[in-house]
Amino acid sequence: MGPSTDFLGRDVVSARDFKREQFERILRATEDLEKHRGSLDGTLKGKLAALLFFEPSTRTYSSFQIASEKLGMKVTGFAGPTGSSITKGETLHDTVKMFEGYGADIFVVRHSKMGAARFAAEITDKPVISAGDGSREHPTQAMVDLHAIRKAFGKIDGLKVGMLGDLRYGRTSSSLAYALSNFDVEITFIAPEALQMRPEVSLLLKQRGVTPKKEKALKDVAGKLDVLYVTRIQKERIPDPTEFEKVKGMYEVNLEALRDAKPSLKVLHPLPRVDELATEVDGTDYAQYFVQAAGGLPLRMVLMNLILGGGN
Amino acid sequence: MGPSTDFLGRDVVSARDFKREQFERILRATEDLEKHRGSLDGTLKGKLAALLFFEPSTRTYSSFQIASEKLGMKVTGFAGPTGSSITKGETLHDTVKMFEGYGADIFVVRHSKMGAARFAAEITDKPVISAGDGSREHPTQAMVDLHAIRKAFGKIDGLKVGMLGDLRYGRTSSSLAYALSNFDVEITFIAPEALQMRPEVSLLLKQRGVTPKKEKALKDVAGKLDVLYVTRIQKERIPDPTEFEKVKGMYEVNLEALRDAKPSLKVLHPLPRVDELATEVDGTDYAQYFVQAAGGLPLRMVLMNLILGGGN
Amino acid sequence: MGPSTDFLGRDVVSARDFKREQFERILRATEDLEKHRGSLDGTLKGKLAALLFFEPSTRTYSSFQIASEKLGMKVTGFAGPTGSSITKGETLHDTVKMFEGYGADIFVVRHSKMGAARFAAEITDKPVISAGDGSREHPTQAMVDLHAIRKAFGKIDGLKVGMLGDLRYGRTSSSLAYALSNFDVEITFIAPEALQMRPEVSLLLKQRGVTPKKEKALKDVAGKLDVLYVTRIQKERIPDPTEFEKVKGMYEVNLEALRDAKPSLKVLHPLPRVDELATEVDGTDYAQYFVQAAGGLPLRMVLMNLILGGGN
Repeated sequence: MGPSTDFLGRDVVSARDFKREQFERILRATEDLEKHRGSLDGTLKGKLAALLFFEPSTRTYSSFQIASEKLGMKVTGFAGPTGSSITKGETLHDTVKMFEGYGADIFVVRHSKMGAARFAAEITDKPVISAGDGSREHPTQAMVDLHAIRKAFGKIDGLKVGMLGDLRYGRTSSSLAYALSNFDVEITFIAPEALQMRPEVSLLLKQRGVTPKKEKALKDVAGKLDVLYVTRIQKERIPDPTEFEKVKGMYEVNLEALRDAKPSLKVLHPLPRVDELATEVDGTDYAQYFVQAAGGLPLRMVLMNLILGGGN
Repeated sequence: MGPSTDFLGRDVVSARDFKREQFERILRATEDLEKHRGSLDGTLKGKLAALLFFEPSTRTYSSFQIASEKLGMKVTGFAGPTGSSITKGETLHDTVKMFEGYGADIFVVRHSKMGAARFAAEITDKPVISAGDGSREHPTQAMVDLHAIRKAFGKIDGLKVGMLGDLRYGRTSSSLAYALSNFDVEITFIAPEALQMRPEVSLLLKQRGVTPKKEKALKDVAGKLDVLYVTRIQKERIPDPTEFEKVKGMYEVNLEALRDAKPSLKVLHPLPRVDELATEVDGTDYAQYFVQAAGGLPLRMVLMNLILGGGN
Repeated sequence: MGPSTDFLGRDVVSARDFKREQFERILRATEDLEKHRGSLDGTLKGKLAALLFFEPSTRTYSSFQIASEKLGMKVTGFAGPTGSSITKGETLHDTVKMFEGYGADIFVVRHSKMGAARFAAEITDKPVISAGDGSREHPTQAMVDLHAIRKAFGKIDGLKVGMLGDLRYGRTSSSLAYALSNFDVEITFIAPEALQMRPEVSLLLKQRGVTPKKEKALKDVAGKLDVLYVTRIQKERIPDPTEFEKVKGMYEVNLEALRDAKPSLKVLHPLPRVDELATEVDGTDYAQYFVQAAGGLPLRMVLMNLILGGGN
């Protein structure tokens, strides 16, 4: 088998579906691209990418849009629900069929409903990439996160990773946990009880040999971590918001919270952030989140290029 | 006169304005393009298309956008009212003047007000295509519909066409009726009394030698049709919605409703659909609506190419 | 120093920051471009423009979008707040950092908050152009306005300019006043007391040798003007709207209001207009506002080309 057979024509709907070798292949190719900027420019000329964002996301949409255009593709679709026939009740099924009819070579789907990307993949024979669906999966974000980790440490094995925030409903956290389970890492889930990681995620991790720890407060574990992955807590999701107000400070990452951190700690955040990650961290060596965000562009170029067999 | 003189520089604001020869020319050129994909790519390089969608439509917008870009044009304008100065009260007049000033070579206008496209055509000397305006006209959709019929039967003459749904306010139905009146067809309008086709449409058809029949229920006519054109009924438009609930089922197209249909029947729908056309029809030979939708892209490429004299 | 050193890499955040020579350079280059259309096409090929319109504006957005694309740049960003992560609370800071990470070579920022463009310019080393921020500045509009004046009269010195409407909160009026203060002009501010020009603008003008007059009614000054710059009055901004209704007619520009005007008078308006400028003026020689609007495209091409050193 040639080297691109792992990705050629395949869907990307869950981080669970990828093996260590596949993640490593994507990461290496992304690192190569970052060293020689532009070397994938135009490899997919003449192709059409349909970006169907039923839910808005400036960051993810823009990176897929720029990546598609740099690869030479034309872009169609929509960046959010307004201005589309969705308001008339157009279904995901018919929308996918329509853009397939218009000649789309690849689909990128973001949707609030769990499983939407997998459903889209069943409708069309063209490859479908999830750009986040429901509260479970955002597989390309997990690849971007791994890339940021490897960029900081040159490796993923051997690292102690803390994941903080809304682990129950945060789609990026479960996708990253699935991805990390392919490596030799220690994972600690840091969250209030009501927002702790879902049991089926922990179970899969254990089956893969990674037994996650659970903590209620960052301070109990901050000093031991190599990577701290921060996500937002949306108060509305806590059964007792008043109760949460009392403990909220335990989940805010600022210089005080990082007092005991290793100097080599790297803080990641999928962004956008609100107040769970203080801007005072931006200027420190801890801050890896803007590097992380910037990686979204080359990584998505690499991924689409491998899937559509664009060469290089 | 050279062969492109029929379309060069002209506006497309009503299906009434086109003759049989002109429809046939568009259809033949679209069939040619579908056989040799890409042969119009880049013929309008350097030109600018202004897509002014004061009313959103994913399907129509995307097909014009992709068509314009495949022809080599740059695209500007807006896909819906949000994010535009329309919210500040910018008029259609000033918007058209502005994009003319920015060098637009062709305008595609969608608007909720009847006559908006014709008004735009009076403002600018550049060609204006209606992408649907008011409840009367959607001329390029009618061309797309004819294309789907001819693709299924190899001809239009001699066919029995039923049109079902909201014929009074549905812009696609009246445009298709105007277009079909250039051919030797039998037309049956199937709708509740309150939503039957407007008298002036029937009158024009009669003047052109096509006397439409009217029916209240699909079941009375289903077995005789070659083509069934389905459109949505919006309950709010019925004077007595409670009364309508009782008869609603008579206008839903599903396998039961098609029990007596000819095996060769083709069902069309301009899409998006809600529940007036059951998904169980999708897998049958009756379903022509996704083929119909896909034709929107090549047909609109052909049309814009003829209007702007792009060659080929 | 080579000729482009005045603009290379610089931010455009206030009309106050530019000198007469710089305005003249932009105007001359724009006039040159208008004479030889297309001569800047593709000069910035391979570059990426991030258009961040936190506030919608069809006119300004479209001109920057088309200008960027004609220069050969790819375009990313958003045309308005809907469909972006802004609804999740993404800050201007993080949005700029993100697009910088995605390789943006130039930023165009429109925002409702005063100083947003200058703040963006502090975040990134890439050049930032204000496309209007707060109620104070819209510097490229001022350049477009000067261009329209020079196009009508062949000069700016020696002209009598009246500025009418909401001068207190109208961002285009203060930017134009700053720009005009570099020339030998007479300026009259025509507005109800509550909406007269802010003191600091008048002060800067005086320091630069242009002492503005103030009038309450157009009719007292209409006969003396060479240029009448009209802007909208938003009733909500008047402390006593009922009182304003009585005098509203004094600020509506129609043929009656222009009865005493010089035949050579030119009326400008940044558009969009509502009812402060009657359409009956459109057909007269007074109307310079569509010429003015059309100038937005070549002028913004020239400006971005100079800033990014695209040659020609």
